Amino acid sequence: MDYETPQFYRVIQYAARADRDVVDMVSGSPDWDPPEALRDGLREYADADASEFQYAPSRGLRGLRERIAQRHGVDVDRVVVTNGAGEANHLAMTGGLDAFPGAEILLANPVYPYYAGRANFLGAETTLVPVDTDGSLAPAAVREAASEETAVVVVNSPNNPTGAVYDADAMDEFVAIAEANDALLVSDEVYDRFDYADRFASAIGADSPNVVATNAFSKSMAITGFRVGYAVFPSTDGPTADLVDEATTRHMLTNVSGSRPAQFAVQRAMAATPDSYYATARERVAGRLETFCDALDAAGATYTRPDGGFYVMARFPDFPGTFDNVYELVDEAGVAGMPGDAFGTAAADAIRFSLTTPEVETAAERVAEYFR
Amino acid sequence: MDYETPQFYRVIQYAARADRDVVDMVSGSPDWDPPEALRDGLREYADADASEFQYAPSRGLRGLRERIAQRHGVDVDRVVVTNGAGEANHLAMTGGLDAFPGAEILLANPVYPYYAGRANFLGAETTLVPVDTDGSLAPAAVREAASEETAVVVVNSPNNPTGAVYDADAMDEFVAIAEANDALLVSDEVYDRFDYADRFASAIGADSPNVVATNAFSKSMAITGFRVGYAVFPSTDGPTADLVDEATTRHMLTNVSGSRPAQFAVQRAMAATPDSYYATARERVAGRLETFCDALDAAGATYTRPDGGFYVMARFPDFPGTFDNVYELVDEAGVAGMPGDAFGTAAADAIRFSLTTPEVETAAERVAEYFR
Repeated sequence: MDYETPQFYRVIQYAARADRDVVDMVSGSPDWDPPEALRDGLREYADADASEFQYAPSRGLRGLRERIAQRHGVDVDRVVVTNGAGEANHLAMTGGLDAFPGAEILLANPVYPYYAGRANFLGAETTLVPVDTDGSLAPAAVREAASEETAVVVVNSPNNPTGAVYDADAMDEFVAIAEANDALLVSDEVYDRFDYADRFASAIGADSPNVVATNAFSKSMAITGFRVGYAVFPSTDGPTADLVDEATTRHMLTNVSGSRPAQFAVQRAMAATPDSYYATARERVAGRLETFCDALDAAGATYTRPDGGFYVMARFPDFPGTFDNVYELVDEAGVAGMPGDAFGTAAADAIRFSLTTPEVETAAERVAEYFR
Repeated sequence: MDYETPQFYRVIQYAARADRDVVDMVSGSPDWDPPEALRDGLREYADADASEFQYAPSRGLRGLRERIAQRHGVDVDRVVVTNGAGEANHLAMTGGLDAFPGAEILLANPVYPYYAGRANFLGAETTLVPVDTDGSLAPAAVREAASEETAVVVVNSPNNPTGAVYDADAMDEFVAIAEANDALLVSDEVYDRFDYADRFASAIGADSPNVVATNAFSKSMAITGFRVGYAVFPSTDGPTADLVDEATTRHMLTNVSGSRPAQFAVQRAMAATPDSYYATARERVAGRLETFCDALDAAGATYTRPDGGFYVMARFPDFPGTFDNVYELVDEAGVAGMPGDAFGTAAADAIRFSLTTPEVETAAERVAEYFR
């Protein structure tokens, strides 16, 4: 699998060329509005003094880092603001490979393609650990796969593409596995606001020197284009105290700093966005999930109802998740999903549908009708 | 020299703790206003549809790339928008190391610390080529230093810290040296709008498969905090056609894409900013240069009058560019410069003064007085 090329473009382009209207269930970009306070933050910034248009500190605006630290109950020195969760994961994975003795990265199968692409690009050995039938990574399977060769274990909760969410017990086990194997647990928690079963537990809670948690405002504030994310590194008085400085250096030598108008607006939005904004967004996706799962039932699909995130992985009888089948679904049903193929071998029989479209009802009817 | 730690913080922090007012001639951040069209672009963006808050294409907004391509007379496929000139240089230098056989990077001495830090961080062998007494890199010296070991040659015009500007003949020679040694010329042209002697020539003009030119809007639009830069890669039908795709992949796996509000505002500002904005900025710095050079004359300093950029490197009698002397100048004269030490051995006897302060006149008087 070539994880370096973003496969989703292929489907989006195919759908764009189709002779009919197509509901896009491919991209992971929210279709709803960002918080009003974020727009206000941009307006305020537009009028700011010239000095506010200059370099932000490399680790991010101090006020933003303080709010992030407060949200997670950690010392502000542990927080580095990054160019989205993408760079946070990049810094965490490269930091883990540098700091720990092994050269292997453990990833779930199915895998979010960026993880696999990045691991290949960094020259790491990648081992894909198959998830259980419910889409979650069993701690026992990770323990079995981990060894002294392992430098990094990546978990993603809520999970893209499977929708699995790890509770505190599971997360503690992942942390213990990282500690036992002298490895770094990278916990990507970018969908943490989309936890439908109230099960999510952040890896930060374990307060381990072997954990870096990554996150972003991309999904929670519907601003994937802003590129404001962050990583929470281990305590600065523990055995892995250097991780945060090394990541800061890498960040500085790559990007100097993150984009300031985006950080400024996010800082304002963190301060002034009511909980109801996040609740509404969560309920919106949860409602769509309901609608779409009903259609999957009607279509005779097998799937595990997601506990979190934006996606449903569905398996249709005699209709594996190949690009050809996905193209057929575009042409014949007017619904575009992502081929399971793109997420590694374990998902080859499935199609991933993203709930980031207002037309989920239309898509649901079409899918139910097509497979009836 | 530890190029990984930003030395300028040390001076800025020292100056901030001083018991007197100090003119900051350390930072390279413009102190003037960005174009009004840039502020308007942010206001327009604040009201944009939710879809405009989502991922920009990894290579940057199409309209922005087209304007950049038009400015430089190149095909749009050669342009990748980056997180400032910093990331553009990172992509160019790593691309050169990957694509060309050698493992050595040639840099000027004095050296902009980020180049040296990045080269160290990438594990390249770094060779510093001393500049001439006028602060410019002689093509003959670069030719002498270059060999089959050389993968990348970095030139910066107008130069930070020396103020040298390379004309078309010099640039053609640098290009020829890269071609002759199977290496990549990385030409950082971020100060191209600050060319006081009308001498600047872009390396893009050579249209060579061995050139990547890097640039940004940080200085030209006074927005160092926006992180909008770009690299112009070789033609996509030449022998190094892959460079642009490889850089795009690296950019995508590191950052996914650049920040969209910043790109949007820059695109609007490129479209609507009159030439007079750039001319005013250039004349402002040129005027300050005049004032400050008069003071340097009065202080008995030796220096080469910069042909471009934001900086003057000055040598004072019996007062080398150490941190201690710079701290003394802060305390005794109320002027903060950068120790030449921070730019490598060739500048150890000099102090760099940045002209990005409205108080150049005050600083000039203080320096003249202190050394009188």
